Amino acid sequence: MHACDHSRRRFIQQSAFLSAGVILAKPAQLLATANEQGTRAYNIKSKGYAGKDEHGKLALWNFERRAVGDNDVLIEIKYCGICHSDIHTIRGHWGKQQYPQVPGHEIAGVVTAVGKNVTKFKVGDKAGVGCMVNSCMQCESCKKGEEHHCETMGFTGTYGSPEKSSPSGISQGGYSNNIVVKDHFAIKIPDNIDLQHAAPLLCAGITTYSPMMQYQIKKGDKVGVVGIGGLGHMAIKIAVSKGAEVYAFTTSSSKVSDCKGFGAKEVIVVDGADKLKSWFGKLDYMISTVPYAYDMSNYISCVKPYGYFTQVGQPINGELTINNFNMIFNRVNFNGSLIGGIPETQEVMDYCAKNKIHPQIQIIKAEEINDAWEKVVNKQARYRYVIDAATF
Amino acid sequence: MHACDHSRRRFIQQSAFLSAGVILAKPAQLLATANEQGTRAYNIKSKGYAGKDEHGKLALWNFERRAVGDNDVLIEIKYCGICHSDIHTIRGHWGKQQYPQVPGHEIAGVVTAVGKNVTKFKVGDKAGVGCMVNSCMQCESCKKGEEHHCETMGFTGTYGSPEKSSPSGISQGGYSNNIVVKDHFAIKIPDNIDLQHAAPLLCAGITTYSPMMQYQIKKGDKVGVVGIGGLGHMAIKIAVSKGAEVYAFTTSSSKVSDCKGFGAKEVIVVDGADKLKSWFGKLDYMISTVPYAYDMSNYISCVKPYGYFTQVGQPINGELTINNFNMIFNRVNFNGSLIGGIPETQEVMDYCAKNKIHPQIQIIKAEEINDAWEKVVNKQARYRYVIDAATF
Repeated sequence: MHACDHSRRRFIQQSAFLSAGVILAKPAQLLATANEQGTRAYNIKSKGYAGKDEHGKLALWNFERRAVGDNDVLIEIKYCGICHSDIHTIRGHWGKQQYPQVPGHEIAGVVTAVGKNVTKFKVGDKAGVGCMVNSCMQCESCKKGEEHHCETMGFTGTYGSPEKSSPSGISQGGYSNNIVVKDHFAIKIPDNIDLQHAAPLLCAGITTYSPMMQYQIKKGDKVGVVGIGGLGHMAIKIAVSKGAEVYAFTTSSSKVSDCKGFGAKEVIVVDGADKLKSWFGKLDYMISTVPYAYDMSNYISCVKPYGYFTQVGQPINGELTINNFNMIFNRVNFNGSLIGGIPETQEVMDYCAKNKIHPQIQIIKAEEINDAWEKVVNKQARYRYVIDAATF
Repeated sequence: MHACDHSRRRFIQQSAFLSAGVILAKPAQLLATANEQGTRAYNIKSKGYAGKDEHGKLALWNFERRAVGDNDVLIEIKYCGICHSDIHTIRGHWGKQQYPQVPGHEIAGVVTAVGKNVTKFKVGDKAGVGCMVNSCMQCESCKKGEEHHCETMGFTGTYGSPEKSSPSGISQGGYSNNIVVKDHFAIKIPDNIDLQHAAPLLCAGITTYSPMMQYQIKKGDKVGVVGIGGLGHMAIKIAVSKGAEVYAFTTSSSKVSDCKGFGAKEVIVVDGADKLKSWFGKLDYMISTVPYAYDMSNYISCVKPYGYFTQVGQPINGELTINNFNMIFNRVNFNGSLIGGIPETQEVMDYCAKNKIHPQIQIIKAEEINDAWEKVVNKQARYRYVIDAATF
């Protein structure tokens, strides 16, 4: 796909070669290009925070990205959200990983170079990158904008996916100061939303928006949201914006007033299974963002017969226990949902920008990342940590 | 509900008292009645095979049923099917039980007495009893014919449910020579089907028919059936009768030709997980009758995105493991389904009678029950054992 696929040579920033195929923002910022024939390439120097193994802390890492290809854009990252998926991935909860690995898939920044075929962006545009950076673009799913369900190669995740074009052999994410990405997989960030508020929409936003649109929540629907963190609080805000009556289920009593602030009609502090019984059969739809195995069956039973319950949180190894005695009585349809396609990611970005649906964020410095991860795990995040990429 | 609810007195067969409120078939057969004021009652003597504890074998047991109330019918049982649920229940796999307990909920026989309010049946009619014998009849679910989802008291199962009117304190099932049941919960058996073929329709038939109708399988749909036993073989036959292309998934290579005989287009002998991969995303709908925990996730993935997978088999304690990594990619809706309401049970009975959709049965004597249970557990049943009640 790209000239430097196999080169992985290291070039220093100062040696950047200006190719006719790349339109530069400020030549000094651009680190490398491919030449017209694609036989030479100048990798992009990058720095970010990487996991070095399953157990240790993230640490600063200087690495390289591929040169900017004809269909690529180079984005100078300004902000990157911290998602629980970053933690699960780096800690090996979802499978063995290659290290060093830079996590981060809620990326917002400014385009600083575009390949010669790129028309979607121009230098200076605000742009974001979510959870994927490539797919086959040929299969039925890709053609209809469901690149996350690419039927041939599967999508390439923003970090940790094998990627020949990457000098490190895997894709490297957004806890860093820049990223090179195929234009198709970059999202336009409208002028009416700040970059720091745009970043979490690229995972927390789309992951909750997509299933709620799939199951067509509408005005007056009673929607339950389980787990009020980065994703859950966005689910509340989006559902409220669609006119739903939202019921927030949390184990943290300290989140009650925040949830009401997000627009929840009622907040249920689930400090015992009996708290759920009075909700059995009451909700039209429910979405759970809980990223660990939990007593899911009783939550599912809160949905009306023939309604839908979507699990977007991904537990360790993906395993969840379902009790079929409950399922045969509650008649609820259980499903999972994975992010959303590029067109729908653009849609949620535009929708949230227009309707001023902003995540509640705390901006942190790079050196605070490890501490923030602990707080995410300990349910102390309120509600999305966003890294200021200027601090790398 | 019934005159003898609290009496539980024992009367000998010969003392049967002919009440004005009960229309008798042959007086000598009738064992007891309630009088007009409901202050006296003559219990019905019955004999059948009961479990005495979780581990032992079933053995002959002489017991009593309530007298025939104003809304009851007395059915002389001719045949009763053996369902895997009988085994799970008596062995305590689904929870602690009261013993002695007579299992059996695929009951077919002839009405020998009716209470004075009964208009649905007359003496001599063929009648069946499925998985339930009572519900509140007042709630929304009951009123719309979904008695199995009774919202107030829950339904009373045909055996093992607490039942005040029963002299033993729990309902007693169909491995016996007669049963007393509220007329509403008895199913009319048309003349164009034999009793021995009608019996299995009352659980195996309705349990597979109901979800397939719910998910509206239709001509040309690709329907998968997992687990080809008593329920599974009926699922194949019913789906084929609706014009579906049926794909049978079994672990028993010895069932291949039978499945084709039932009408399956293709039979997949699943002797390894890799056998399922080529089916991923291919089927419109899938029903699993597997009554034990199994590697469900790969089967679910055989359904097309946004299709439905119904688990009707009930594993020990109901627990099934679902892998949400599969669910987020396959986008399948998972649900459970529990038998069906009385109107739909009548519907499947009439439908199968009219279309000559008969279960493949093996008739056994009472003394063969324990052996048959072992064969059911060991997947040796072909495909439904039906007890000849004349042998009790």
